[in-house]
Amino acid sequence: MTLLSEAEIRDCVGFDPQALAAIAQGFSRLAQGRAFAPPVVAIEIPEHGGEVDIKTAYIEGLGSVAVKVAAGFADNPAKGLPYGTGTMVMISAETGFLQALLVDNGYLTELRTGLAGALAADSLARREIESAGVIGAGSQARYQMRGLKMVRDFKRLYVYGPIPEEVSRYVDDIEAELGVEVVVATTAESVVRRSDVVVCATPAREPYLQAQWLHPGLHVTAMGADMPSKQELFAECLARAEHVVCDSVSQCAAIGELHHALDAGLIDESAVDELGELTSGGKPGRQSDDEITICDLTGVGVQDTAIARLAYERAIAAGCGASFGD
Amino acid sequence: MTLLSEAEIRDCVGFDPQALAAIAQGFSRLAQGRAFAPPVVAIEIPEHGGEVDIKTAYIEGLGSVAVKVAAGFADNPAKGLPYGTGTMVMISAETGFLQALLVDNGYLTELRTGLAGALAADSLARREIESAGVIGAGSQARYQMRGLKMVRDFKRLYVYGPIPEEVSRYVDDIEAELGVEVVVATTAESVVRRSDVVVCATPAREPYLQAQWLHPGLHVTAMGADMPSKQELFAECLARAEHVVCDSVSQCAAIGELHHALDAGLIDESAVDELGELTSGGKPGRQSDDEITICDLTGVGVQDTAIARLAYERAIAAGCGASFGD
Repeated sequence: MTLLSEAEIRDCVGFDPQALAAIAQGFSRLAQGRAFAPPVVAIEIPEHGGEVDIKTAYIEGLGSVAVKVAAGFADNPAKGLPYGTGTMVMISAETGFLQALLVDNGYLTELRTGLAGALAADSLARREIESAGVIGAGSQARYQMRGLKMVRDFKRLYVYGPIPEEVSRYVDDIEAELGVEVVVATTAESVVRRSDVVVCATPAREPYLQAQWLHPGLHVTAMGADMPSKQELFAECLARAEHVVCDSVSQCAAIGELHHALDAGLIDESAVDELGELTSGGKPGRQSDDEITICDLTGVGVQDTAIARLAYERAIAAGCGASFGD
Repeated sequence: MTLLSEAEIRDCVGFDPQALAAIAQGFSRLAQGRAFAPPVVAIEIPEHGGEVDIKTAYIEGLGSVAVKVAAGFADNPAKGLPYGTGTMVMISAETGFLQALLVDNGYLTELRTGLAGALAADSLARREIESAGVIGAGSQARYQMRGLKMVRDFKRLYVYGPIPEEVSRYVDDIEAELGVEVVVATTAESVVRRSDVVVCATPAREPYLQAQWLHPGLHVTAMGADMPSKQELFAECLARAEHVVCDSVSQCAAIGELHHALDAGLIDESAVDELGELTSGGKPGRQSDDEITICDLTGVGVQDTAIARLAYERAIAAGCGASFGD
């Protein structure tokens, strides 16, 4: 059994083409019925404002199954601790025996979510874009733009966030890291109206993005909603878009943006595609420059198994990690 | 983060009163609405005859949540590997941060299942018994009798199993370990007819225990069924018993003996009690010497969190385990 620390995992895997391909393969196999991702297990711990989520998946042909235990505790920041964390246990898909513990502290979740955003944009954004936009200036707002930069060459990034100090740090960091001009917007609306691709990366529990802000040619990825009480887009957005894609239709129907649009009777589940249908080539992505497209990301276990397996393979090849037992 | 090996865990926890009390507390809190155990996650890996089960629970007042990843692979024995294994990840119930990895290789599952059997017998078997019986002579048939011996002083044990060599090893080991006379029975029927308490500990996919074998005063614990296709008792047994108890009614209705009796329309879910109602004193156990009682055990996440937490507390107090990270 191999123990991998966050530092070792960060050294092994990041925004590279093979990582993007691994996530694409996970989604493709899921859409082809060659992977199985059970429903997310969520445990609430109200005494400490905590939620624990368990995600896992088996992907045909992969030698491992990862089980991710992710936690977010509202009381943590007051204790000087990060809000969220996570760990992955990896077992052999051939024998069930323990292969590795990846003590990534949530890094792999951030990464695989950014890579899913990249896949969504690669299928659904216009080929040539001028400006990208991001709502939210936290950690995932960074990962999403790192992912987007892999697949689209944008010169300008509009950012809107509610905490000025956070936005200001975001501007400094991302300008230096991605080499793009980062412009602070004063409203979410101005981000949407001026961008060709927008990523919504907030934990909003009330929708803020209005359907009338959507303009021809725009692609929006919404990755904030991952429980029934979270929502970034007004449900009318999904009705207005020409093409709505979900990472997992069943999961988005339960805990994503899709859930609210279905509840409001504004969209039919059969009109929605799954991201893996696009990555596998089974269905087309964007079909014209004028289409409005939306991708709803809730985070699927296939992403966790795919990225954990890649990190593990590279760590073993590089001789990284501590061993325990055996 | 503390890493505990199977040997360290075996040194820390076994069939002791505090372990029994920890499992009882888990069931009691579940029945009182002071614990939450989400449905079991099951992943099938048909390529290798594998099944991976994930169980977890939060128990109010406990400082940890355990997530157990258990696996059983039909192809393993041909590879010289044990059929099943398991590992538990433990996180803080106050912050979500990783506390421990318990590499118990399934030991804690065997133990907590034996302890649940002990609790069932303690509530439902007659106070004074002469003879116990066990169907199956594998590992869990041992754990069940270790558990039963904690709560009932029996002199004779009838055992039936399909593999003579396995039964013969069972007789030698259990006679020496428990100091009881172990008698080999030639049929499951003769075990049931001659015993005051019977534990069914087989992975049967076809029922074998017939309702007409049940006699006044008998208690039966069936612990084999933990998926919809498994069944040890003919459904009529549950209709014939005066008192049917489940470790978790919702789980047994999906994957236990109860499931088959409900399907056959032979029992009403409202007539079934939950083990935690008995351990908490909310409902009575056995009420007369003549009652026929049945307990259906499928294995609930509260058992895993309870036993993992106890093992961890004792390991920390004893200075056991390797540390990683921090």
